[in-house]
Amino acid sequence: MDAERETAAEVGEFALIDRLAGALAEVGAASAGDLLGIGDDAAAWWPAPGARALITTDSLIAGVHFRLDWTGWRDLGHKALAVNVSDIAAMGGRPRLAVVSLGLTGREPVAGLLDLYRGLGELAARRGLAVAGGDVVRSPDRLGLHVTVVGESWPDLGGRILTRAGARPGEALAVGGPLGLSAAGLVLLAGHAAGAGPVDLAAAAPQERALLAAHLRPEPRVALGRLLVAAGASAAMDLSDGLFGDLPKVLVASGVGARVDERRLPVAAAVRALFPDEWLDLATRGGEDYELLFTLPPASLGATTRAAERIGATITPIGTILQPDGAPGVIEVLDLDGLRRTIESGAFDHFAPS
Amino acid sequence: MDAERETAAEVGEFALIDRLAGALAEVGAASAGDLLGIGDDAAAWWPAPGARALITTDSLIAGVHFRLDWTGWRDLGHKALAVNVSDIAAMGGRPRLAVVSLGLTGREPVAGLLDLYRGLGELAARRGLAVAGGDVVRSPDRLGLHVTVVGESWPDLGGRILTRAGARPGEALAVGGPLGLSAAGLVLLAGHAAGAGPVDLAAAAPQERALLAAHLRPEPRVALGRLLVAAGASAAMDLSDGLFGDLPKVLVASGVGARVDERRLPVAAAVRALFPDEWLDLATRGGEDYELLFTLPPASLGATTRAAERIGATITPIGTILQPDGAPGVIEVLDLDGLRRTIESGAFDHFAPS
Repeated sequence: MDAERETAAEVGEFALIDRLAGALAEVGAASAGDLLGIGDDAAAWWPAPGARALITTDSLIAGVHFRLDWTGWRDLGHKALAVNVSDIAAMGGRPRLAVVSLGLTGREPVAGLLDLYRGLGELAARRGLAVAGGDVVRSPDRLGLHVTVVGESWPDLGGRILTRAGARPGEALAVGGPLGLSAAGLVLLAGHAAGAGPVDLAAAAPQERALLAAHLRPEPRVALGRLLVAAGASAAMDLSDGLFGDLPKVLVASGVGARVDERRLPVAAAVRALFPDEWLDLATRGGEDYELLFTLPPASLGATTRAAERIGATITPIGTILQPDGAPGVIEVLDLDGLRRTIESGAFDHFAPS
Repeated sequence: MDAERETAAEVGEFALIDRLAGALAEVGAASAGDLLGIGDDAAAWWPAPGARALITTDSLIAGVHFRLDWTGWRDLGHKALAVNVSDIAAMGGRPRLAVVSLGLTGREPVAGLLDLYRGLGELAARRGLAVAGGDVVRSPDRLGLHVTVVGESWPDLGGRILTRAGARPGEALAVGGPLGLSAAGLVLLAGHAAGAGPVDLAAAAPQERALLAAHLRPEPRVALGRLLVAAGASAAMDLSDGLFGDLPKVLVASGVGARVDERRLPVAAAVRALFPDEWLDLATRGGEDYELLFTLPPASLGATTRAAERIGATITPIGTILQPDGAPGVIEVLDLDGLRRTIESGAFDHFAPS
């Protein structure tokens, strides 16, 4: 058997699990402090005293959420964990551990799966969370990654977390990073030559690299989430379905409306240059930004923005929370010409008949 | 549109999530005490002070772990949660909450998915855990249920949990319920007339009902797990891959061997009667028993057995933990004729080429 080409089915479940655990240990993600991980019916840990616990789960399905002809295994592992950690960051939490249920066709190369776990484990180790085990099952048609992350409130911030429900009229609406990078990266990927193999970010053209990286390796905004809790932000979420898809969720949960000024949206120069006609759509309706969208009292905006700069984040105010005009959730948009319009939710529906 | 036949794709993601949350609320499983659940990026709860936390995840894939032509939607929901709660029970823990990632083809009937969530929610409500949210994604080829359950040590038992690693030579090896019922039920299901529709347990023949129920609606042994912690059990796990598949996992983790007396295995009279030639194989190599396998000091066996009877459980000693004979994990079997043999692990490998 050619060791470089051996598949999950050839290696078998139990040997594969041992080797995946080995890949995690190699990058320092198999255990953390008091964790009792892989090898028992459940993983065990000690929550921080007085902390509130958080949990989130997200699945990535081959052909739906990723394509292995675009995405390298290591990047895929990073992203599967990152999208979950981003949910913990959006609640202002500290990630503690992850469990992974891996649905395999059996045809996956073991070398690829080991790289998947290395990518996942590298992010985990860097963010201080452990990969505490999981399940490996047969999924005959396509690979599926089902990740759950547990977090908790930062112990020094008194059990406080952020939800979508606290935005109040008059508060500032802001985002924690540029919008549309990931959606622009996805457009670039769609034009990637079939058969060229997964994208190597290090070899990408300089003006495209940030766009591709935003799509393939989103970075969860854990430090910014923590800062927002400390700064007294009133509501937050992470952007996964596009600004105009996600903002209504905060507005409805909070019972308010909002005004958004499109002239103030932070959009990278590379996105404007490469997509002169589409950049605004990419920034408002493109998905998978994984940047934080949040509200906070206007009086604290300045100090919070300066504190964010000290941790390498950029806060951009993009609008104002309004009293609801009728039903909550309505967005009043000031467009690039200063004209006013009202818009509907643009959320992507995963089951919309195609 | 015929409301009875509408599919997930026709209803759309967000309306479907609302209706699934409604089905959980209907059976009392959408919230519990201090839980902040569906509607934020993550669910939040307060761990019990001083308790150790537990987490487990298991996936059920259509055509691999269940068949919708055998299994009713409500039973499927029950089972998807039960197999996870069983892992918490095996660690001697109290289940607290579940999150569900649901992979849908879009062709599922909404009425079926609502029943799925009712079945899941009924077990959750009865066991005192909340279904705290999750994810709904598109899984084009087949339905997948990816459930994660969080538990914790019982607050009055001082943070103690059970692992697989504590078995010591000389201790008693015991099981908490009959073996082979579920595997026998699976054989009955395989003979179930194609096209007859899912099995209705209430209408099943009396001698078959317990077998079918063990397979379709396993009951997690939460109370027994708690009792075993209190009684000072040294190791435990739940049986999902058959006695001879799972026992080596305890033995290897504990660095010991074991002797098992097949004449002492608890096997239901109905299994012996319906499967006169196969009952021993069903009891030792059949999977999905979801009964607890555990070890404890011989001196506490009598009192623990009586305490178990008071909560409706039956403890059956089936053997003894031995010093390892060479490598740990070896099972010395006394067969029905009192003859001795040594056996290998019989674990089912999910990727074994078929």
